[in-house]
Amino acid sequence: MYRSHNCGELNASHINQEVTLAGWVQKSRNKGFMIWVDLRDRYGITQLIFDTGRTQKEVFNSAASLGREFVIQVKGTVIEREAKNPNMATGDIEILVSELTILNASILPPFSIEDETDGGEELRMKYRYLDIRRNPVKNSLIFRHKVGIEVRNYLSKQGFIEVETPVLIKSTPEGARDFVVPSRMNEGQFYALPQSPQTFKQLLMVGGMDKYFQIVKCFRDEDLRADRQPEFTQIDCEMAFVEQEDIIQTFEGLASHLLKEIKGIETGPFPRMTYDEAMKKYGNDKPDIRFGMEFGELNEVTQHKDFAVFNSSELVVGIAVPGAGAYTRKQIDELIEWVKRPQVGASGMVYAKYEADGSIKSSVDKFYDQGDLQKWSEITGAKPGDLILVLSGDAHKTRTRMSALRMELATRLGLRNPEVFAPLWVVDFPLLEWDEDTSRFHAMHHPFTSPKPEDMPLLETNPAAVRANAYDLVLNGNEIGGGSIRIHDKATQSLMFKYLGFTEEQAKAQFGFLMDAFQFGAPPHGGLAFGFDRLVAILGGQETIRDFIAFPKNNSGRDVMIDAPSAIDNAQLDELHIRLK
Amino acid sequence: MYRSHNCGELNASHINQEVTLAGWVQKSRNKGFMIWVDLRDRYGITQLIFDTGRTQKEVFNSAASLGREFVIQVKGTVIEREAKNPNMATGDIEILVSELTILNASILPPFSIEDETDGGEELRMKYRYLDIRRNPVKNSLIFRHKVGIEVRNYLSKQGFIEVETPVLIKSTPEGARDFVVPSRMNEGQFYALPQSPQTFKQLLMVGGMDKYFQIVKCFRDEDLRADRQPEFTQIDCEMAFVEQEDIIQTFEGLASHLLKEIKGIETGPFPRMTYDEAMKKYGNDKPDIRFGMEFGELNEVTQHKDFAVFNSSELVVGIAVPGAGAYTRKQIDELIEWVKRPQVGASGMVYAKYEADGSIKSSVDKFYDQGDLQKWSEITGAKPGDLILVLSGDAHKTRTRMSALRMELATRLGLRNPEVFAPLWVVDFPLLEWDEDTSRFHAMHHPFTSPKPEDMPLLETNPAAVRANAYDLVLNGNEIGGGSIRIHDKATQSLMFKYLGFTEEQAKAQFGFLMDAFQFGAPPHGGLAFGFDRLVAILGGQETIRDFIAFPKNNSGRDVMIDAPSAIDNAQLDELHIRLK
Repeated sequence: MYRSHNCGELNASHINQEVTLAGWVQKSRNKGFMIWVDLRDRYGITQLIFDTGRTQKEVFNSAASLGREFVIQVKGTVIEREAKNPNMATGDIEILVSELTILNASILPPFSIEDETDGGEELRMKYRYLDIRRNPVKNSLIFRHKVGIEVRNYLSKQGFIEVETPVLIKSTPEGARDFVVPSRMNEGQFYALPQSPQTFKQLLMVGGMDKYFQIVKCFRDEDLRADRQPEFTQIDCEMAFVEQEDIIQTFEGLASHLLKEIKGIETGPFPRMTYDEAMKKYGNDKPDIRFGMEFGELNEVTQHKDFAVFNSSELVVGIAVPGAGAYTRKQIDELIEWVKRPQVGASGMVYAKYEADGSIKSSVDKFYDQGDLQKWSEITGAKPGDLILVLSGDAHKTRTRMSALRMELATRLGLRNPEVFAPLWVVDFPLLEWDEDTSRFHAMHHPFTSPKPEDMPLLETNPAAVRANAYDLVLNGNEIGGGSIRIHDKATQSLMFKYLGFTEEQAKAQFGFLMDAFQFGAPPHGGLAFGFDRLVAILGGQETIRDFIAFPKNNSGRDVMIDAPSAIDNAQLDELHIRLK
Repeated sequence: MYRSHNCGELNASHINQEVTLAGWVQKSRNKGFMIWVDLRDRYGITQLIFDTGRTQKEVFNSAASLGREFVIQVKGTVIEREAKNPNMATGDIEILVSELTILNASILPPFSIEDETDGGEELRMKYRYLDIRRNPVKNSLIFRHKVGIEVRNYLSKQGFIEVETPVLIKSTPEGARDFVVPSRMNEGQFYALPQSPQTFKQLLMVGGMDKYFQIVKCFRDEDLRADRQPEFTQIDCEMAFVEQEDIIQTFEGLASHLLKEIKGIETGPFPRMTYDEAMKKYGNDKPDIRFGMEFGELNEVTQHKDFAVFNSSELVVGIAVPGAGAYTRKQIDELIEWVKRPQVGASGMVYAKYEADGSIKSSVDKFYDQGDLQKWSEITGAKPGDLILVLSGDAHKTRTRMSALRMELATRLGLRNPEVFAPLWVVDFPLLEWDEDTSRFHAMHHPFTSPKPEDMPLLETNPAAVRANAYDLVLNGNEIGGGSIRIHDKATQSLMFKYLGFTEEQAKAQFGFLMDAFQFGAPPHGGLAFGFDRLVAILGGQETIRDFIAFPKNNSGRDVMIDAPSAIDNAQLDELHIRLK
């Protein structure tokens, strides 16, 4: 044993004890006759003291040679500190060192191992093992572990069985791009890495496992947007003999448990909203409901007033920005420029200031009188002192733009408090969405999602109007989970593949095993998957997932620490029956 | 909700309650006026009764149409059973059904869904979802889940943090063959799937995580021997500031906890044995010590007796087979044929029967008198009624052959009781082993294993004699875990790569990141990994791992259920910058 205690546990009750500690030199101060060293490990920091009067000369000299991040072992006596530090768990004591062993030296780290580091993103990734020594990263990883333990124990107590599904599976053309693995033993053939264990969890339901879960790595070979990783972790769940309501209840239970156990927050029943309502009120299928600024549709009160822009718009929609009535012309112009950026794409924005005296001044006073504008404020819920912002145009695009504006303003106004948690179920998602690129319908969730039985007849006449038994759990404007009731009979599943443009042969080749399975007594079933990285980050009060992943990849999918991917030799390619193009 | 109760929970206390159940038709008996159906779900079986006198006609008729594995929902009343079945949890009651809904029909399954099935291995794998409905497979998966929960909670309470390490990593030439993944974004480059998270867990120690674990999928593209899988699961662990003894104590704690919690078995401290002792006594570095038959070396007592075979042998070794003194000549001849099979490879075997009257009859009576044979029996520990079997030749090969014979006899004699658990630590493994094929030393454990400090000087003079700080945990003749204290300084690691035949450039290209990391204050550290599939199978009292894996692959690495691997299209190959050879 290299230590009798760790660096976070000694306090006044240990005074006069002989102890052995080991850890890293966080920093040292050398006053000539006295050296203080902060010794750090995962558990905390303990102050060591070397004193010319009380420490052997060679130990003192060795202490004087210590640099930052040296790994040392010390023996000594716990003594009371003269200048106590109430902000440290070990702040009442220090160790008067009698023996010092340097276990390993350190060259100068490329950035400082402090909570606030001077290391840039690239450097921190290259030396991730040093970055992990920093509290923010270390604590995020420990936090992730704790959430994982809570998830597993909660689901286990509810009768869920964690079953490991295979990583080497079959490539399917549906969905995102697969990572593939050439097979050595099966020439010319490839495994794929799972984008999710979807079909396996359904087969487990056919197999009678009843309640399944897995915290599992999934893979998507997509161009990486910020804060996406090619490998990510899901809490994947499935239940048999359930309806949508059962699943919502079960996983609301899990989410409530986590909020309570991890954050100490008691939530009531989660609100629910249909997809249509979410789009109308927030322009977004994952609305952040920690704050208001709900959309007010102004079409009715803006028509026939000679304002051609609004008259010709499919949708005129406004929000009331709380307290922004005092914005200067310059500030408002900046907002108008902001919505006109290509990422947002509006061509302009109308505004109306609801003054403290009750009058309303707008950028379209020429067309709308106080009575009109009063209606705007009623519909948007504006109060004196607020600023009404109005966008117009194509309904879907305008909603999306307004949603972006709403989120931007909320961020600027500090309304997105990471310590406030507002969960929300969004239900009744459309089954299909039209894809412009391929000119066909795609499954909005995935091809295994069940249409609502009452909407089935619409599949032939108005596919876009068919609603699915699909639901998302939204937390603070992020989709943290999503799922659906699945199709469990072969006929409906075949029909669905047909609507999605699969030929019978394609459907059979790709998913024949699933449709075969449905013939042998498949129970009604459904499930849900949480994005574990995102869930943990949000619970941890962070915007980005990167610090909750021990060894993340950069936006080119590279691990810059180990320098992967990398070339492999020709012999290896030969064995795999492939060559480079 | 499709059910008010599951099929395993109703008993006499529920009599007269109205209940709703859902599940599979296990079987039905139709007596014309009465139909009994066994309804099955994950939790058990409940008997349903349909009675012409008490059941509506159309419900009765519907019940008559049910086939095996139909999925149904029933409503009815819990009533007392006339013929109680004390072997069933629900054996006191049955359900008098009032409503029956067929949720899904089933065609005839390709094999019977019973504990003892008529389905062969191939068929069971192709329809694995049906196989999982069978108790032996279902219970194995549930058992695996429970072991996983126990492992995680135990290690978590000991301060271990589960950290997910990446699956898309870098290919290394050392060790087994890697599975690789072509990168789309990094042309001509490949990720590899990890054979173990070895370097990452060491980097986590450099990063100060102190105690790490992970239950994690690992991958090896090797020709599959029976009961090996290309993807397998490890309980991977690492600790900092520890010596071998600390690791042994910690994971003996875990193994004891599992034996106690899962099997109800209290074990004392696990015995320990050096590698040399294990090889001498059992011819095996993972000896099964549930039974005796320890090797007795007979060289000294067999020389100079004119028996040329023994005189010229490096090793003459015998075992006493308990109670086998009564074997007939035919039985013994069969054993001699057995050791001469190519898989074992002996050229012959000498035997000596220790008769009940104390006399000993051997196949080499011409050379050895009763006094000689008495010594054999003393050395092998033979008692009257035992059979002494003797092999000779090259020391290592002879030990291996004798080990195979010992295990075979133990199996035949029923000494390998799966409900007896005999754990054993094997320590002081050699650091290096000579590889005939490549004419160089390979790391016996892996290149990161620390030599014993006192043996370091031997590296130059007698590399084969250098012992490592490496240890295996053996259970019932299976290596269930293995690990080592690691090298934690750059100089020793460089030296090790040199001894293993790496050029400086190769070492830097493959493991430069690790050696770099060692410069920044790497703590002493070590760890261990358990083979989770094997561990679970042994705890479950089974010889093979396959039923403890939900969706195993066959010996060609194929998933015959989903038919993977499979061909992918040219567009996909193009994107990945590869083509078929």
